Amino acid sequence: METVSTNKSHHGVQGVYKHTSSVTGTEMTFSVFVPNHAEGAKLPVVWYLSGLTCTHANVTEKGEFRAACAELGLIFVAPDTSPRGEGVPDDPEGAYDFGLGAGFYVNATQAPFDQHYKMRDYIEKELPDLIASKFPVDMSRQGIMGHSMGGHGALTIGLRNPDRFKAVSAFSPIVSPLNCPWGEKALTGYIGSDKSTWREYDSCALLEDGARLPDLLVDQGTADNFLEKELKTHLLVEACSAAGQKAEIRMQDGYDHSYYFISTFMDQHLVWHAERLG
Amino acid sequence: METVSTNKSHHGVQGVYKHTSSVTGTEMTFSVFVPNHAEGAKLPVVWYLSGLTCTHANVTEKGEFRAACAELGLIFVAPDTSPRGEGVPDDPEGAYDFGLGAGFYVNATQAPFDQHYKMRDYIEKELPDLIASKFPVDMSRQGIMGHSMGGHGALTIGLRNPDRFKAVSAFSPIVSPLNCPWGEKALTGYIGSDKSTWREYDSCALLEDGARLPDLLVDQGTADNFLEKELKTHLLVEACSAAGQKAEIRMQDGYDHSYYFISTFMDQHLVWHAERLG
Repeated sequence: METVSTNKSHHGVQGVYKHTSSVTGTEMTFSVFVPNHAEGAKLPVVWYLSGLTCTHANVTEKGEFRAACAELGLIFVAPDTSPRGEGVPDDPEGAYDFGLGAGFYVNATQAPFDQHYKMRDYIEKELPDLIASKFPVDMSRQGIMGHSMGGHGALTIGLRNPDRFKAVSAFSPIVSPLNCPWGEKALTGYIGSDKSTWREYDSCALLEDGARLPDLLVDQGTADNFLEKELKTHLLVEACSAAGQKAEIRMQDGYDHSYYFISTFMDQHLVWHAERLG
Repeated sequence: METVSTNKSHHGVQGVYKHTSSVTGTEMTFSVFVPNHAEGAKLPVVWYLSGLTCTHANVTEKGEFRAACAELGLIFVAPDTSPRGEGVPDDPEGAYDFGLGAGFYVNATQAPFDQHYKMRDYIEKELPDLIASKFPVDMSRQGIMGHSMGGHGALTIGLRNPDRFKAVSAFSPIVSPLNCPWGEKALTGYIGSDKSTWREYDSCALLEDGARLPDLLVDQGTADNFLEKELKTHLLVEACSAAGQKAEIRMQDGYDHSYYFISTFMDQHLVWHAERLG
């Protein structure tokens, strides 16, 4: 692991790091905020998965999470959203919703994407090991959150790993790739047209198939341009209701899909995570 | 005035606007955050002047000011740092520290910059009138702050206009253009080599020449790469001391010149302004 930059912020250290990932076969960059803490202390960690077109940098610059993380004693990890670099295939037409910046947190099985697009294993297996070895984290106290495509990532990774994550929340998540154009395109491209294989990458299907969490927090803006066609929050409300899944799904009046929305409710999500991470 | 964008954030509205400036002879863009407020209420306003290379966008995205402004009921205005557009001359070699993005908050008198580079009049005269006419501001309650070149702007504009500004603060300000390479280059280029004309654009010289404020708040990181050569905080400490100017000038251990620093102490500055704006 190599340090790209560190900046003191909110009495802690905001760092950016890179390493060679054996899972994606590429160099991967991520950011970590470590609050000021007693020597030898191990802190709970919150993972933040970003949305389409983003890198680690978007939330790191615009997320307004450091003040709350400093106060609550939370480490905050922000990975990239896809493999990148020479030889990594992109959307054939360079679209923003597939390929670079759009890994969808799946393990691709379809050529040519199956060689590098292994964001599921990267987030579920490789990066946690690196974080555990390099930062003062208590890996028995992990939460996960994300935005849009990253909200989809947080919900599906959370639902598949309830023993690892004690807190799961999302901003404006894609709740069902099975039922929206972004999901159709990405999952067809990455894992093929057999939709039965998509279910482990679909929050609503996971709930239908029996996955459960202690609870769930979701914030969704009512003025979000992607709500109707792509995000479809009501499908998650219905899936939670049908599954008896405890969930607080809040429609936030007048908010859009941007970091102006995320930063407004970031504090509340972090408090919610801290309460569950002890 | 034309609205470029508005986003709901922290229960208020973060807007970006543009207008044709008669002072600079160009189109100018600026951002305004208006917190949620009672109908008909007039709110105090804090001006934020940005540093070299910045536009309105840097602080708007990275400044982490909205939560505190929402809580304290402050309108936050962030202008651009220079005129821009066709026909606006830049540094002959395209350097970052002169010309576009580097207006230094002066009225240029030297050709070819004297035609558009009138950032002093823009901030002191034209933009306040526009803000007063378009936003719910109480113009009897104004504060001003800024960063680096914008810290220089805030201090000099504040010192020249103590009746207008009830609160003046700065992050990492250039405290004396008379005594640093950035200042030498910019003031020579904009207003010529007669240094007696520079004194109204130099915080330390203004204090020496009798300008006073009720008090002053400055935060400066000790790990700031520009501290020794360009910012020279100690000159302001000495000038305040010699002038009997009340000032809280805080050296912040380990902080650099970035928004990671600014955002850490933004809340404290806004509370300080709110206390003085009533």
